[in-house]
Amino acid sequence: MVYLDNHTTTSPCGPALDRLRSENVPSLDNQTQILYDFVGAEIADRFVFTSSGAEAINQVHWTVFLELARKEGKCHFITSAFEDAPMTQSLKRLEELGCFVKIVPFTREGQIDFVRLAELISPRTALISISLAQGLTGVVQPVEEIAKLAKEKNVLLHVDATYALGKIATPFHGLDYLTFAGDRLHSVKGSGGLFAKAGRPLLPFILGGEEQGGLRGGSLDTPSFLALTAAVNQATLFLDTMNLEVARLRDRFEEGVVREIPTAKVLFQDALRLPNVSVICFPRAHQEAMLFLLQRKNFLASIGGSYMPQLSRLLMASGLDEQLAQTAVSFSLSRYTTQAEIDKAIALLSDAVRQLYALSQDLFS
Amino acid sequence: MVYLDNHTTTSPCGPALDRLRSENVPSLDNQTQILYDFVGAEIADRFVFTSSGAEAINQVHWTVFLELARKEGKCHFITSAFEDAPMTQSLKRLEELGCFVKIVPFTREGQIDFVRLAELISPRTALISISLAQGLTGVVQPVEEIAKLAKEKNVLLHVDATYALGKIATPFHGLDYLTFAGDRLHSVKGSGGLFAKAGRPLLPFILGGEEQGGLRGGSLDTPSFLALTAAVNQATLFLDTMNLEVARLRDRFEEGVVREIPTAKVLFQDALRLPNVSVICFPRAHQEAMLFLLQRKNFLASIGGSYMPQLSRLLMASGLDEQLAQTAVSFSLSRYTTQAEIDKAIALLSDAVRQLYALSQDLFS
Repeated sequence: MVYLDNHTTTSPCGPALDRLRSENVPSLDNQTQILYDFVGAEIADRFVFTSSGAEAINQVHWTVFLELARKEGKCHFITSAFEDAPMTQSLKRLEELGCFVKIVPFTREGQIDFVRLAELISPRTALISISLAQGLTGVVQPVEEIAKLAKEKNVLLHVDATYALGKIATPFHGLDYLTFAGDRLHSVKGSGGLFAKAGRPLLPFILGGEEQGGLRGGSLDTPSFLALTAAVNQATLFLDTMNLEVARLRDRFEEGVVREIPTAKVLFQDALRLPNVSVICFPRAHQEAMLFLLQRKNFLASIGGSYMPQLSRLLMASGLDEQLAQTAVSFSLSRYTTQAEIDKAIALLSDAVRQLYALSQDLFS
Repeated sequence: MVYLDNHTTTSPCGPALDRLRSENVPSLDNQTQILYDFVGAEIADRFVFTSSGAEAINQVHWTVFLELARKEGKCHFITSAFEDAPMTQSLKRLEELGCFVKIVPFTREGQIDFVRLAELISPRTALISISLAQGLTGVVQPVEEIAKLAKEKNVLLHVDATYALGKIATPFHGLDYLTFAGDRLHSVKGSGGLFAKAGRPLLPFILGGEEQGGLRGGSLDTPSFLALTAAVNQATLFLDTMNLEVARLRDRFEEGVVREIPTAKVLFQDALRLPNVSVICFPRAHQEAMLFLLQRKNFLASIGGSYMPQLSRLLMASGLDEQLAQTAVSFSLSRYTTQAEIDKAIALLSDAVRQLYALSQDLFS
């Protein structure tokens, strides 16, 4: 099997799985400190362990809705044009409750259009809520600039770091809220987290008692929490591997694909992007046919959809020709990806493209 | 250790723990069917797997708020005077959003005052939201009567069955919503559930994609879900044990305590109550001193508090004298409770009471 679909989910690492059945419960304070250190949060910042990244995002939006929209009339929210479902659906509910959501478009480089973002901010804007890195393209947003702008304009900034954590250094400094999903970080499903900067509003989303300082009702799922801290510990240890070895494998993958399939076109190579993601167009090979064929060869990759945006729509919005956009496939490596897997991936892709080309020649000849 | 604090949490059973690390994933449909069968839900009824009982309760309240309070102006909610924090806090938030919450008192028998309940219902009442069995006293509510009343008055009925499931047969028939926590049913923490009768409104609470038919965003925590179904399977198998063997041990416990401590007074013995719960007053031994002393002897029981109501307040509201109410302790057995544990519990209680009596004699002599 070739698994280059680590956008969708990652396999839990051994130390995370071990925690699920361990009778040994380490100090929860020390374990929490691992998470704080991971993003450089300060002691006065607050952390909530949630059951998913989606829940964490809902909690941020809900807090800002209750504290700023309802109490102060700051009911405008800004998000980007290509976010996953937790972001878009949670903001859609706020719209139903009377808020206004403004969408900032992407540039041709796959980043948020900073000029448009600045224009969209009004005195009623409560929150900018965006992903740190876009999952399918791996393109990283200019978060420092956005944070500076948000601060100037007195707007809160929430960054979902689900795709970035464990791939690039992700400092919490300058942000107001940071959320993430554990299952994209080699932890178990049923784990996620939320950091809120000291002094920023933070309310429970799931109500039901004083667990986690009253910030989340329901009993703490200690094994899943410990699985998350174990996974974060591993991610810290492997951050260099990610930026050296995984980036090398990704480059090898891109070079190999272009060598074997001369028509292939790698996108976003000049952008600031995650070390583990690659988007490649295979002209004349429709992405859905491609994905189907790859799946039959036990090779998993992604073209978006489900809770993600459609990759083709994202690329068209970034100025790519429609026909080409519909041949793009996104590949996402993990630290468990091997060179043998990459070489097999190149060979399988080359076969698949040849098969599809032969098929289309049959159809049109 | 003597563990008679199964109100607070239960130890996960072996089959539930096994599921956490099993590579074997059984058919999710078949596993879901186990849950449906457990409460006699019909195929058209809907089930949502949640991260806790608290989340499930929040989802029911939130659904009714959005669908009935906001859309139809039915913004009155009724709950009982002695509910756990998920119920009370979630309804309190609805109050902040403009709803009205009415509280139905308890009778001397520890049940909801049915006459008052009927009086509290108005044409604007959207939902009656109560626990099927009160956790600390084990007293079971007259749910069939309440369901009949709710139906007559066109009010939705939500029952939290957290304390009842696995202890008594809990039919979903006649109810609109049923919620429960997995960790009180020998499943793992991080598991809970919600049933909604076919045709009743049901909205996602955590938004973020089309998982679980769009009823809960975030990826399904399959291991925890399978742990829950394994635990429910066990609970089904052991339902007779609960009503025969556990009830016998509970009775042995009560008889033994009264024999060894002649001043002790068992409450709610004539009420319809769960087979595993016992509330006993130890006149002149304050419940907090008692609990502290027991804890030092490695014997865990409960007097409420934290996310539960205070046992003493509940008993006073049921007409018990204040001084006596403050000497009450609640004990909750599980199917893992042994006769040796019960006999040890009786001996430890007898020692503790003697110690406290000696102490108070020293103080007052």
